[in-house]
Amino acid sequence: MLKDTKTQRRPKAETPKGFRDYFGAEVTERSAMLARIAEVYRHYGFEALETSAVETVEALGKFLPDVDRPNEGVFAWKEEEDWLALRYDLTAPLARVYAQHRAQLPTPYRRYAMGPVWRNEKPGPGRFRQFYQCDADTVGTPTVAADAEICAMLADALETVGITRGDYLIKINNRKVLNGVLEKLGLTEEPIKRGEPITENEAALGLYAEMIRRNVENISRLDVLRTVDKFDKVGLEGVRQLLTVGRKDASGAFIEGVGLSDEQADIVLQFLGAKGHTNDDTLWNLRKAVSGAKIGEEGVDELEEIASLLSAQGYGPDRVLIDPSVVRGLGYYTGPVFEAELTFEIRDEKGRQQKFGSVAGGGRYDDLVKRFTGESVPATGISIGVDRLLAALRAKRRVADEQPGPVVVTVMDRDRMADTFAIVAELRAAGIRAEPYLGNPKSFGNQMKYADRRRAPFAIIEGSDEKARGVVQVKDLVAGARAAETASLEEWKDRPAQQEVPRGELVQRLKALLAK
Amino acid sequence: MLKDTKTQRRPKAETPKGFRDYFGAEVTERSAMLARIAEVYRHYGFEALETSAVETVEALGKFLPDVDRPNEGVFAWKEEEDWLALRYDLTAPLARVYAQHRAQLPTPYRRYAMGPVWRNEKPGPGRFRQFYQCDADTVGTPTVAADAEICAMLADALETVGITRGDYLIKINNRKVLNGVLEKLGLTEEPIKRGEPITENEAALGLYAEMIRRNVENISRLDVLRTVDKFDKVGLEGVRQLLTVGRKDASGAFIEGVGLSDEQADIVLQFLGAKGHTNDDTLWNLRKAVSGAKIGEEGVDELEEIASLLSAQGYGPDRVLIDPSVVRGLGYYTGPVFEAELTFEIRDEKGRQQKFGSVAGGGRYDDLVKRFTGESVPATGISIGVDRLLAALRAKRRVADEQPGPVVVTVMDRDRMADTFAIVAELRAAGIRAEPYLGNPKSFGNQMKYADRRRAPFAIIEGSDEKARGVVQVKDLVAGARAAETASLEEWKDRPAQQEVPRGELVQRLKALLAK
Repeated sequence: MLKDTKTQRRPKAETPKGFRDYFGAEVTERSAMLARIAEVYRHYGFEALETSAVETVEALGKFLPDVDRPNEGVFAWKEEEDWLALRYDLTAPLARVYAQHRAQLPTPYRRYAMGPVWRNEKPGPGRFRQFYQCDADTVGTPTVAADAEICAMLADALETVGITRGDYLIKINNRKVLNGVLEKLGLTEEPIKRGEPITENEAALGLYAEMIRRNVENISRLDVLRTVDKFDKVGLEGVRQLLTVGRKDASGAFIEGVGLSDEQADIVLQFLGAKGHTNDDTLWNLRKAVSGAKIGEEGVDELEEIASLLSAQGYGPDRVLIDPSVVRGLGYYTGPVFEAELTFEIRDEKGRQQKFGSVAGGGRYDDLVKRFTGESVPATGISIGVDRLLAALRAKRRVADEQPGPVVVTVMDRDRMADTFAIVAELRAAGIRAEPYLGNPKSFGNQMKYADRRRAPFAIIEGSDEKARGVVQVKDLVAGARAAETASLEEWKDRPAQQEVPRGELVQRLKALLAK
Repeated sequence: MLKDTKTQRRPKAETPKGFRDYFGAEVTERSAMLARIAEVYRHYGFEALETSAVETVEALGKFLPDVDRPNEGVFAWKEEEDWLALRYDLTAPLARVYAQHRAQLPTPYRRYAMGPVWRNEKPGPGRFRQFYQCDADTVGTPTVAADAEICAMLADALETVGITRGDYLIKINNRKVLNGVLEKLGLTEEPIKRGEPITENEAALGLYAEMIRRNVENISRLDVLRTVDKFDKVGLEGVRQLLTVGRKDASGAFIEGVGLSDEQADIVLQFLGAKGHTNDDTLWNLRKAVSGAKIGEEGVDELEEIASLLSAQGYGPDRVLIDPSVVRGLGYYTGPVFEAELTFEIRDEKGRQQKFGSVAGGGRYDDLVKRFTGESVPATGISIGVDRLLAALRAKRRVADEQPGPVVVTVMDRDRMADTFAIVAELRAAGIRAEPYLGNPKSFGNQMKYADRRRAPFAIIEGSDEKARGVVQVKDLVAGARAAETASLEEWKDRPAQQEVPRGELVQRLKALLAK
């Protein structure tokens, strides 16, 4: 047998660049959050779907490669004759599933999906090449009642996982309204092209973009829309300058203008300033801003219907608000778009107060299934940025406090492992999370170090002396650690760091101690 | 902008070969089962670990490719300078994690992991290229107390998900005992070679094999071990023939013998026949079979210690049994090996009664981390074959009955969607899973068809007539379907297929109906 001498070199114990491992609470907190969201989705009548991680490049909607490698945004490889790829979101597989199984599926098809997706992008701080998404979509219906329902469900999901009412706002807008405005500017459309780069914001939320480029007289719709997207930062007057002749930014650098006329800019500003004190005000303003553009008026009608359906169910503007400045998902969206923003402030890495920002987004898309079947299938859906939402819950301390480790039962004598096991079995049977120390029992110090590392609340010690006397020592590691630092005498007395208890009373006493 | 004319062709809406989609209950039943197993693992003091799907080929332990593609058993591709691959099990990533993070991890490190793994193998019926595993391992301790604990935990996990005591048996054996027997035969070892093909059984259980080939005078240890593995099928006399001169099988075909002498075969048979009525009997017989072979005697001592630790905790031979015929995981295992077998019978596809068979396996392995660090790190663990166990629970109807679909609230008039939404919101608030019909409401027949497809227990109808009279119709779809077939008059009366209820009493009445 030939031996490969290269294998003598030791392999590196490392994740690939941009990937990471998740330990303990990082895993269980996420699972718990996803399980609660799944409950809400199910309660709304959505059904689970789990597709595999691997799809054909063809089904994912990337162009088939005529060079060695397909589009760089995905992880793809050639397998015999087929190009395969890891899914980069949960929407493209949904379109494939619906096209493949539509004869067996109910229409509308209401499904939720949660799981990892993969992006072959440059990793950055807090930005990984594998991350979770959590989606719900209704496929096969054009009614915006479906969009309204998705918004209500999103509100319920956020509240269910621990985002208090008042700490979030679901903003809705409508691509049709935007299109109405652009139509009034005289800008027309170009065909959709898939596979365009993803904006930071969309990447953070796990939504891929298919940017639509539209040009008239060298002014692109995209430029206008990107300028509109800066409204939050530069305000109305800043947007006006950027849309027309250009503007100096805070650093003094000059940003070139898009080149619209003052009249054209007025139309955009009227749209941007349309947000009123109530949804009704906003709708009235929007109607004015798009008047004469049929698609825009249709968009305003849809927003009105959504708002009215939501408010009939008790979802008022304190939870779901029409906001013309939401320009997210300029990609494949064709109607209503939504974005869930967390409105409380947190400190950023530089200690500045900042709004937490967006944790979910979605909207209506009509053409994803068409690629497969030739028929347009209207659909709408939402995607929750799992890691962002989890970070928010941690920032608000709305995840369960990190659970203590197991009770560690020490080993005083290798030959008495059965005694250790008997204690462990008793504790477990009583519902107490417990484990025996399975390392080398020679050094008792190492056993205590191990218990600390495991964040064990208590260590149990039954030496041969204790065994003879029918007692065990219960060492309180939390109190011990606290006492070592700051404990007052009273605290110390109240929870002594070590106590002797009769062996027969161990379970009962430990239960009482754990309940403290 | 150039247009790619190739994109005019419609993509196929298909999963790649060997992959599949999971719908509804298929997803939720598995999640529920895994959540319950995770609870048991955590209760035993194991911590969650989630590694990414993607590892470097180097870390996974496949040889670095000197040709275009690495080992065909994995999905691998070249990414810039690195070869990446989808993990093919959860043990190889654990070894990488422990080597990478060992300074921060407690030792012993007790971790569980659950998630999909990928195999680049020829798919077959019921055999997919992505499937779930569910593992627990203790890394960094040589004591077989860790092995005993894993066996107890496996028993608890099986009972927790719904396998009744008596319906399963955890069989344990020890590689060292086998090695003792082989030593007595005069067969010595060859170095371990990774990446060998996987047996059907191991593939089904999701365990990869690193077969060890050992040869003396053209007789390989593997041949002997494979023959031993046929004990269940051909019995003692059959094994004797196969080990020596050969044997005619049922079809009359002659199977060549391994070529051992009668004396050598006797040693093997003594080992195989070692299973006694009690664990003590078996241990006594095994001790005889390996007497003189030090490694074998050590193996018997270990089995004795495991059995004694388990029985001290109440895990007797009705649950954990020493069984010399367990020859699983001949690969990287170095000590105790375990296998959980379901002992009840099911009918196979030809209607024959058959034992359900193995649903989990594992054992002690000492060299996986050594690849990275140069130091041997003893470890032991278990892997549950998730799909097999789920199939067993379904066969025994131990999964929750398929849950009914949501209550479907129909739409009688597109303009009255708000009324529909109000009813849906009321039902949901009362804890009833419900959804509005969001398809085209024109045909009432389509709405009923939809409700049937959703397995809705009830449909709610509020036409304008009902609205005016302050009532709604509650249509019982289950009773309706039953009545259409066989219902007696009494049943029909007891649960009329449609009834009118006052609008204000809908929630209360529906709750009562759903509770029936």
